[in-house]
Amino acid sequence: MSPTPVTFTSPDQPASYSWEATDEEVAARYGLPLESVLRFDLNTAAAPPEMAQQVIGAGRFDMPMSEYPPADYRRLIAAAAARYGVEPDEIVVGAGADEVLDIIGKVFLPEGSTALVPVPTYAMYRVITEQRRAHVLPVPRLGSAEGYALDLPAVREAAQEASVVWLCSPNNPTALAEPDGAIQSLLGQIAADATSAGRDRPIVVVDEAYAEFAGRSVTALRFEHPNLITVRTASKAYALAGLRVGFGIARPEVIARMNPFRPPGSVSTVSVTVVTEALLDPTLADANVKRVSAERDRLTSALTKAGWSVGPSTTNFILVDFGSVERAAAVAEGLLRRGLVPRAFPATHKLADHLRLTVRDEGQDDRLIAAARELDVG
Amino acid sequence: MSPTPVTFTSPDQPASYSWEATDEEVAARYGLPLESVLRFDLNTAAAPPEMAQQVIGAGRFDMPMSEYPPADYRRLIAAAAARYGVEPDEIVVGAGADEVLDIIGKVFLPEGSTALVPVPTYAMYRVITEQRRAHVLPVPRLGSAEGYALDLPAVREAAQEASVVWLCSPNNPTALAEPDGAIQSLLGQIAADATSAGRDRPIVVVDEAYAEFAGRSVTALRFEHPNLITVRTASKAYALAGLRVGFGIARPEVIARMNPFRPPGSVSTVSVTVVTEALLDPTLADANVKRVSAERDRLTSALTKAGWSVGPSTTNFILVDFGSVERAAAVAEGLLRRGLVPRAFPATHKLADHLRLTVRDEGQDDRLIAAARELDVG
Repeated sequence: MSPTPVTFTSPDQPASYSWEATDEEVAARYGLPLESVLRFDLNTAAAPPEMAQQVIGAGRFDMPMSEYPPADYRRLIAAAAARYGVEPDEIVVGAGADEVLDIIGKVFLPEGSTALVPVPTYAMYRVITEQRRAHVLPVPRLGSAEGYALDLPAVREAAQEASVVWLCSPNNPTALAEPDGAIQSLLGQIAADATSAGRDRPIVVVDEAYAEFAGRSVTALRFEHPNLITVRTASKAYALAGLRVGFGIARPEVIARMNPFRPPGSVSTVSVTVVTEALLDPTLADANVKRVSAERDRLTSALTKAGWSVGPSTTNFILVDFGSVERAAAVAEGLLRRGLVPRAFPATHKLADHLRLTVRDEGQDDRLIAAARELDVG
Repeated sequence: MSPTPVTFTSPDQPASYSWEATDEEVAARYGLPLESVLRFDLNTAAAPPEMAQQVIGAGRFDMPMSEYPPADYRRLIAAAAARYGVEPDEIVVGAGADEVLDIIGKVFLPEGSTALVPVPTYAMYRVITEQRRAHVLPVPRLGSAEGYALDLPAVREAAQEASVVWLCSPNNPTALAEPDGAIQSLLGQIAADATSAGRDRPIVVVDEAYAEFAGRSVTALRFEHPNLITVRTASKAYALAGLRVGFGIARPEVIARMNPFRPPGSVSTVSVTVVTEALLDPTLADANVKRVSAERDRLTSALTKAGWSVGPSTTNFILVDFGSVERAAAVAEGLLRRGLVPRAFPATHKLADHLRLTVRDEGQDDRLIAAARELDVG
């Protein structure tokens, strides 16, 4: 759900997810009314789609709530297949994209194996790897001038030791997709190296949680590269993070290896029904992406005018460079005092002098803009 | 969710959950209208509680559906703690009890370790163990005359090799709780043996999915035996299987070891809210248990009169002994032709000559009773 405190420990003491402070904790710590707390740290939408409450209010679900969810998630998978342009047997369902990542870990990361993680990135790749008692091989991304893109030669080299390569495009928390053709080229190199060495290709995961905002996906590469698994979610463009639905997409033979490791039914019947309808809505995600893109431009422009150094983004969040850890910390504190929760990074993190901020709606973002104008960030 | 096809394979090819045929598949296979299919195989309730639709219809959830579920599940955990008579820091939340079992596997079953499984029992203990590339050590339960109780000396002996002991009381699919004091006695023996051998005690899991129906729980033993984890669920007595909420209960130091392995938020916000309210309802589970118990007696009596050999039960299901695999298969086929789905067991299973049947409501059970009268089971 969140980004990336990436420091590397022993898999005997696996990293765990660093839970965000709850609204209640933020309100209590800063002496604020609970309703004044706004989350700019979770990359969630300002509001759920109206259809969600309508579907729920109608009270007609795929199954009665007393029964287990449909064992084969048939309607949900059909809707996702149509939406993502793949076949139903190319999809596995998880309780959020996080569960899809967990299933990948269970299938493809035996104890003692190695997973490549280009950093900085989403924290769960490391967490899941270390929970399997497998090792994380971190590969630094290029710098901000290069859009934090993958260091392709370094990733290619490191991939030779890896069972799984965890990629995220657009990357969280750096906000940009890989350049056109980069992942395709990397997949080709990985395939060539594996052939030369006479080994199986590693599984390459491309987490596309933010793909709708960038308007691109590498899913079509699965035919040439059956070691590719793309991951999608209802949490971001569909604005339904609270329902916990995610998908893994891969060739049927890969899905067939993953399916035995999925739980009997981890996604609630209510979530199944609402997300099915959301995926069947031809305009929902597009409208949200369009709105977020326009609002991101407005927010970026206003924060830039307020003196903040806002990086480019093809996601629903922005990354702001404050130039020093101290200044980033001071801004974070100033925002929190106003009930605006930013994503900050630990002092040892490569982005400790940055904050990540979610693009929300105009009214909510105006509070952020007003704060930026007030805060002394010189 | 279901019981127990227990045959033992290599953990290199871990057992997977055998998904039940869906309603659609049953209807198609037997040429039945979809709405005529009734599930007697899933140990679910005839209907969800009325409060569930009311809470959902009100549309007020712990968080908006666009936000992630509450990171600390605070209200849900408080409600569960009050319900189960434990402290909030003694609870871990999962997407169904199955996820709690999965977390236990992640924490306490390293690759190559051993888990003890008294058989027959719920299938997921084996699935989760083998997914961890750990080994299952099966210990046969006593026979029907002994209520399929644990073979205590055999379990004690085998526990000396185990990292985890998976118990289920009342046991699925055999329908009875362990005799009074049996688990306490076993925990004492396991502790004594571990002390003698100078090793840590294995984790002892007692899956109490059906505990409300039996009116007993071993949770209080956790003080004397901090290696005890009990598992509870909203799926059975609370009649909310479709919402996927389960709990692990143990001493705070055990929960503290499990928490880092729980996903950031696998339970949907809607499920969090509805199950919180269900747990806070002082009468819901009791009323359901009372109704199920009365209906179980009626069903048992009617099926017995129809010539079936129905075993005793302190759960929401019954186990029927047909005396031969052929007769059980013939009855199963006869029920399926009527749209009534029983739980049958594979030919190699110890209970292959039995069927397991859920206690539903009077109208639904009457269809089962009518079928029993019609079917030639002589």
